[in-house]
Amino acid sequence: MSTQEPLGAQERLVRSTQELLWERGYVGTSPKAILERAGVGQGSMYHHFSGKSELALAAIRRTAEELKQGAESCLGGPGTAYDRIAAYLLRERRVLRGCPIGRMTQDRDVVRSAELRQPLDELFGWLQGRIAEVLAEGQRRGELTAEPAPAAGAAAVAAVVQGGYVLARAADDPAPFDAAVQGVLALLAAQRTPGTRTTG
Amino acid sequence: MSTQEPLGAQERLVRSTQELLWERGYVGTSPKAILERAGVGQGSMYHHFSGKSELALAAIRRTAEELKQGAESCLGGPGTAYDRIAAYLLRERRVLRGCPIGRMTQDRDVVRSAELRQPLDELFGWLQGRIAEVLAEGQRRGELTAEPAPAAGAAAVAAVVQGGYVLARAADDPAPFDAAVQGVLALLAAQRTPGTRTTG
Repeated sequence: MSTQEPLGAQERLVRSTQELLWERGYVGTSPKAILERAGVGQGSMYHHFSGKSELALAAIRRTAEELKQGAESCLGGPGTAYDRIAAYLLRERRVLRGCPIGRMTQDRDVVRSAELRQPLDELFGWLQGRIAEVLAEGQRRGELTAEPAPAAGAAAVAAVVQGGYVLARAADDPAPFDAAVQGVLALLAAQRTPGTRTTG
Repeated sequence: MSTQEPLGAQERLVRSTQELLWERGYVGTSPKAILERAGVGQGSMYHHFSGKSELALAAIRRTAEELKQGAESCLGGPGTAYDRIAAYLLRERRVLRGCPIGRMTQDRDVVRSAELRQPLDELFGWLQGRIAEVLAEGQRRGELTAEPAPAAGAAAVAAVVQGGYVLARAADDPAPFDAAVQGVLALLAAQRTPGTRTTG
């Protein structure tokens, strides 16, 4: 937002919950911590939301929508299929913070709730579908060989990003994330047909 | 263990903590829950361990050692480099439970503690090094082409497994894990030199 207007309580609650879920996960985020960070009172929270679960759902949906837009800006960009997937893979930046949606999959209370898990499922389903489209387009245009099958290649690309975060956080160093991205890009680059190898 | 002897309190505490950390993470595992699952009293726990942190460290180290042995049984097995990496990738089974060590990287209290993070770092560092050795051996023997660089290829393989868990848990379905593994295997298979393509 570029406006200087103060944010309303509802918006502050959602943004504070987005941050806290990313930092601490669902089980580690207390309503008290949300209220403190948002700087709003308990009455205001219960005016806008029935409780932590409903507020978390709004925050998770918002985060998922933001990630989707960021991914689409790369995958829907110009260039060959390889270029667009490379743009997506190389885009990821705040590696040691991890993925705010991926980390939710480690929260038992989130994955056991059909409602809270839904935006995770939708985001990663959309992401894999979108990458598969790009790969299929590259194959149709003759930029890429027929291997791997687009759905499998897309799952591998999405998994490398999510797993790269895990490896980087274990090492407290972004290097394994970068290495994993370079590894899958080298493998994808080898699937380019000769005429398209000039751009990557 | 094949013995029928009852386990001692210390061993029951470690195993119960291994299970609870896997299910609930560090922040979600209370000393009370550990005592209940282990069926031991508080006095016994503080006789063997200074507290939750020391017990968690013993449990994480144990789990990491078990995972290392399991991975080595595939990566150190017979066959070509591709076969050994395929055996490692296809070995993973309890997909929806996720990786007990990978999930620890999402626990702020774990990654912020140099002591608790160390066994995570060691396991994933070892794993990437071991896979890189196998890839380098395959390249040296002429089974695989020179791309990707072994360290990058190894990071990608390890990331696919960790990220595959994330995608599967988001979907509440092992299918994305299996797809990611098939995707990276198809990419690796394409790097095999013609003479070695009969076995995979």
